[in-house]
Amino acid sequence: MTTDPLRRADRQEISDLLIEYCRALDLMDLPAIARVFTEDCEVEYGPEDRLRSRGAAGVAKSLERMWRWARTSHHLSNIQIAFEGSDRARAVSYVLAWHERPDGSTATVMGQYHDELMRGQNGWRIARRRMEMNGSDAGFTVNLHRTRRQKPPAGWVAPNIDGPVKADVSKTGRK
Amino acid sequence: MTTDPLRRADRQEISDLLIEYCRALDLMDLPAIARVFTEDCEVEYGPEDRLRSRGAAGVAKSLERMWRWARTSHHLSNIQIAFEGSDRARAVSYVLAWHERPDGSTATVMGQYHDELMRGQNGWRIARRRMEMNGSDAGFTVNLHRTRRQKPPAGWVAPNIDGPVKADVSKTGRK
Amino acid sequence: MTTDPLRRADRQEISDLLIEYCRALDLMDLPAIARVFTEDCEVEYGPEDRLRSRGAAGVAKSLERMWRWARTSHHLSNIQIAFEGSDRARAVSYVLAWHERPDGSTATVMGQYHDELMRGQNGWRIARRRMEMNGSDAGFTVNLHRTRRQKPPAGWVAPNIDGPVKADVSKTGRK
Repeated sequence: MTTDPLRRADRQEISDLLIEYCRALDLMDLPAIARVFTEDCEVEYGPEDRLRSRGAAGVAKSLERMWRWARTSHHLSNIQIAFEGSDRARAVSYVLAWHERPDGSTATVMGQYHDELMRGQNGWRIARRRMEMNGSDAGFTVNLHRTRRQKPPAGWVAPNIDGPVKADVSKTGRK
Repeated sequence: MTTDPLRRADRQEISDLLIEYCRALDLMDLPAIARVFTEDCEVEYGPEDRLRSRGAAGVAKSLERMWRWARTSHHLSNIQIAFEGSDRARAVSYVLAWHERPDGSTATVMGQYHDELMRGQNGWRIARRRMEMNGSDAGFTVNLHRTRRQKPPAGWVAPNIDGPVKADVSKTGRK
Repeated sequence: MTTDPLRRADRQEISDLLIEYCRALDLMDLPAIARVFTEDCEVEYGPEDRLRSRGAAGVAKSLERMWRWARTSHHLSNIQIAFEGSDRARAVSYVLAWHERPDGSTATVMGQYHDELMRGQNGWRIARRRMEMNGSDAGFTVNLHRTRRQKPPAGWVAPNIDGPVKADVSKTGRK
């Protein structure tokens, strides 16, 4: 039906969907969260059973856990979308998720959503979501999947890049 | 005039406008800030009179207050746009706003801009802006509107989701 | 060849390219980083020689320095793109870059990438990149270029905008 090789309408709808998840989560609007996922979706935030859930209603139910925070803010960016046929897509996005406990202490996690999306009669929905954690502050203690980063080759030595230029210091013979 | 049901050109222009506000604010380019708003705009960051202003020149003038910070950085994301007729639109976006005082202390606020936009002879401009605060760190003390989040039902109990799996701990009988 | 005055396809490709840099950097996928830049690119993160590099391979090589961090997360937003002819463009984007050392200490920098892009036979690539720093936390010690912010006029006085409304306090004659 579309003649747009860039699939603009699909990109717009998927981007809005990913953002809607964040908005609904920060409002704890559980019915709106459920509408983001397919009926038979699979969502996995970490390797433990307690961090996996299935089905739109199941995901929304599991996210009741976010009420243990008093406030949250989920900032979504770095959205990349690739299509696999007319009704399937993959998306990777970044999230910076800030959480505050009732006692005022906070936890921030920075990570990636790796999503598989399907288009059905209700439009695009998330069929599979896997979260990976790039990093977090000390306050965040949930055991999320970790992003696998390439390691330096054996013998790699860190260059002098931080702070004042040490060459100048050595010229003076002082610390 | 346009035959694009997605209104791509309008979305692009509005997105650029919202970003331009951040860029101009971080540079303290007050004339550029004024150009983002309509002549008769209404802007409200919080419930107090001192956090409301009117008119493009008035908003730019009020934002002179940002000079009490030595440096700022406004990161905009989660942009959602909906159109109401050919020359009106609503946008919701997220901002992570970092501020540093001359003494080096910092304040970060995470929030949402809820905007009404109008298209006039100079293109799209913000006609009404209301900021809501999702959260902030302890350093931020401005009395912004707070995002209204749904509360848990009575009797809701937080699940065990943080830290090590407690089932394993209980098996050993140790803390 | 294109009849799209908005240059949607070019914007999409450039946006994906800028995001790809962040993704590849957080994975320390150095070949993928090299593919983001032109063969004769010039990249400058700060005023010192050790913060400048040339050529796609040279940039990727220089970014081996990121291995002194154990984990990183680069959140890209505020992308603005302007075209200069069919095969040249400029982009400004914001980045919030979080870094963690092997000892668990962290460093966060908030800044802007100012890019010149060229389209060659391999599509759009970054030909020149200059990073500017809007701000950073105390843990970040690399000497990046600083964003030049306009200064307040002489005699400017900060308004009362933080904390409780002091007018109410003065009415009572108390501190």
